[in-house]
Amino acid sequence: MARGAGIAQDELRRVNLGAVLSRVHASGPTSRAALTAELGLNRSTIGDLTAQLAALGLVSEELPTRRGGTGRPSHLVVPRTDVTVVAVLLDVDRIVTALVGLGGVVLARRERLHQRGGHDVEAVVATVAQAVAELQALPEAGRCLGVGVSVPGVVRADDGMVRSAPNLGWTDAPFSALLHTEVGLPVRTGNDANLGVYAEHLRGAAVGVDDVAYVSGSVGIGGGFLVGGQPLRGAGGYAGEIGHLCVDLDGARCRCGAVGCWETRVGENHLLEAAGWLPGGGLPAVDQVTQAAMAGDVRAGAALEEAARWIGVGLRAIVNMVNPEMIVLSGVLAKVFEQRRTTLVGHLRLGGPKALQERLTLVTAALGDDSSLFGAAETAFEPLLADPTTISSPAAHSA
Amino acid sequence: MARGAGIAQDELRRVNLGAVLSRVHASGPTSRAALTAELGLNRSTIGDLTAQLAALGLVSEELPTRRGGTGRPSHLVVPRTDVTVVAVLLDVDRIVTALVGLGGVVLARRERLHQRGGHDVEAVVATVAQAVAELQALPEAGRCLGVGVSVPGVVRADDGMVRSAPNLGWTDAPFSALLHTEVGLPVRTGNDANLGVYAEHLRGAAVGVDDVAYVSGSVGIGGGFLVGGQPLRGAGGYAGEIGHLCVDLDGARCRCGAVGCWETRVGENHLLEAAGWLPGGGLPAVDQVTQAAMAGDVRAGAALEEAARWIGVGLRAIVNMVNPEMIVLSGVLAKVFEQRRTTLVGHLRLGGPKALQERLTLVTAALGDDSSLFGAAETAFEPLLADPTTISSPAAHSA
Repeated sequence: MARGAGIAQDELRRVNLGAVLSRVHASGPTSRAALTAELGLNRSTIGDLTAQLAALGLVSEELPTRRGGTGRPSHLVVPRTDVTVVAVLLDVDRIVTALVGLGGVVLARRERLHQRGGHDVEAVVATVAQAVAELQALPEAGRCLGVGVSVPGVVRADDGMVRSAPNLGWTDAPFSALLHTEVGLPVRTGNDANLGVYAEHLRGAAVGVDDVAYVSGSVGIGGGFLVGGQPLRGAGGYAGEIGHLCVDLDGARCRCGAVGCWETRVGENHLLEAAGWLPGGGLPAVDQVTQAAMAGDVRAGAALEEAARWIGVGLRAIVNMVNPEMIVLSGVLAKVFEQRRTTLVGHLRLGGPKALQERLTLVTAALGDDSSLFGAAETAFEPLLADPTTISSPAAHSA
Repeated sequence: MARGAGIAQDELRRVNLGAVLSRVHASGPTSRAALTAELGLNRSTIGDLTAQLAALGLVSEELPTRRGGTGRPSHLVVPRTDVTVVAVLLDVDRIVTALVGLGGVVLARRERLHQRGGHDVEAVVATVAQAVAELQALPEAGRCLGVGVSVPGVVRADDGMVRSAPNLGWTDAPFSALLHTEVGLPVRTGNDANLGVYAEHLRGAAVGVDDVAYVSGSVGIGGGFLVGGQPLRGAGGYAGEIGHLCVDLDGARCRCGAVGCWETRVGENHLLEAAGWLPGGGLPAVDQVTQAAMAGDVRAGAALEEAARWIGVGLRAIVNMVNPEMIVLSGVLAKVFEQRRTTLVGHLRLGGPKALQERLTLVTAALGDDSSLFGAAETAFEPLLADPTTISSPAAHSA
């Protein structure tokens, strides 16, 4: 029941340029013939569009080295990796930065721990700004269009304001604005799970799958949903706060103030404590629990079993509400899934209408811990892909 | 991060015709000047498009009776109500049918109880087919394009197969196909809450609001979500089965097989039993409970209080997952909200990140019990609005 808005003649070319560039950005070098077929445009239109993208310095056109099939060989349209962005992943214990070229190629990557200032917003901004400057100075940086940032928190879609990031201790932190002032480039900031699902859809476990729930667990639990191939944002861009599903009103109090939130049952630290470990230590500590369980530690085994049960209960809520075709698990949830698949799936499939369970697959994130980092790169490329004509010309840049 | 597909030149006109027709269908008579401004198309394009829609017999163009402002009066583009659909609402105890003209005008309406055959699929098809024939025979029926059906169950988006409708006792009932055979018109069938949210967005409480959760309660609880102005469908079209949120693992067993589903706590019959009534009787029985509570019946009051608490808990899950700007309540949920607003809102606001609660409003359905009926009409109009050129010409029809 989608009701389209009008499309003016002059918008058409912009939309089509974006469609071609998005296609080669996602898939890498693509023949003009394939673009013609996949985008439903005619051959001469595709030729015009790729020529304009080449003139903008966004793609190069190459003759394929090998001929396939009969007839004239079709030119390959190749995304230019000297059009770049910087992707930033803010985590509780580390900051990852990467220089990413058009086509999703990682040209350079840095990882560092938080400074002595800890999670202080100004300190994090300074650290990130330094890393961005370092990457921008590399010869591979070419035309660097902007910075994309992944934050483990609730991020306002309009302006990237970090409304809350409990693990960083941030409330209403204007991280995007502060970083923009430091680096002078456009900065776009998003929630880690929302960025993660997009990256897994573009280049990971969910390629070709349009209805996806990405669920990532560390201390808290984050969710990002793709519905009909589009990110589910919600009114403020805050959708996916699934750590605060109420699953157990007789349970523990959550740091959010409510009782029985899902993340009090399946977060990393709850698992560690249930297994008899001290909280903290992240995924390496979780790995110790799984190794202990495999070695016969009864308490560790029971902790995994219990986590699997509660993960199943929470995923069932997601299935019944948004009807995904695929659930991509990351972090501690992926670890528990690998160890206790039968229990987890059993509790997931326990109830609700059968139709929603039929074609559902569960997988672990193909991009591993980098889903959100790749997603951060994508959010920085987004304005270019929406309208490739906005880029300054290569000549203007090199001048 | 939406990546558009290509748009060919010849699609453009179709999209724009659909945009203009959708606009007047939603808003009623609209001046060409307003269409020009709202759709972002130029004046001569709008003139061409409205002329073509008039030639197709879908709109008439009229000079306004009163002049407003200065300059030439702008022609009014008026949707023609002799282009019609039949909307059908299947409920547990009744079948409502309505003849609805373009612009959403109800031209005729019938309501009848289920036949002695009860909910037997063949019997329901026969009853509905008779009602459709009756409405089609009316002089107002004009060109009747199809039938839209609202079902309280899980409906496959592809073909309208009713995968399950527990209150009707249906499993994999090919209702759409059977009705199509009987009536010879296209039949489109949808879930009642998915249709309800669309109607409330188009003509009800949620006009102008693009992120909406519609939650309707009778024996079970159904949900329909609009995200970014689009229906949230999910992989099979099954999204919104929020009655099966697990809220209480120590609770009652649900008919779905799981324990502690939301609808075991907030369904009509649970409320009635908690208040000391027998189950059954629907909303009129619920009204008796609320009247008893107002008259001082302690048990009835406690039952409402308890329902309000659990409604708040479940709505909180919806808020945290899909971040709506508005929640529209219908059925028993609307009744409890009206009686115990403070308790309900208190439990809704109890936890989760504050950002998701900030701009949230709760309202009751403006279309009352007819949300889903209006939504059924919309689903029948959908193919026409997507491509107005598909309609047979008025001459061909009357021949």
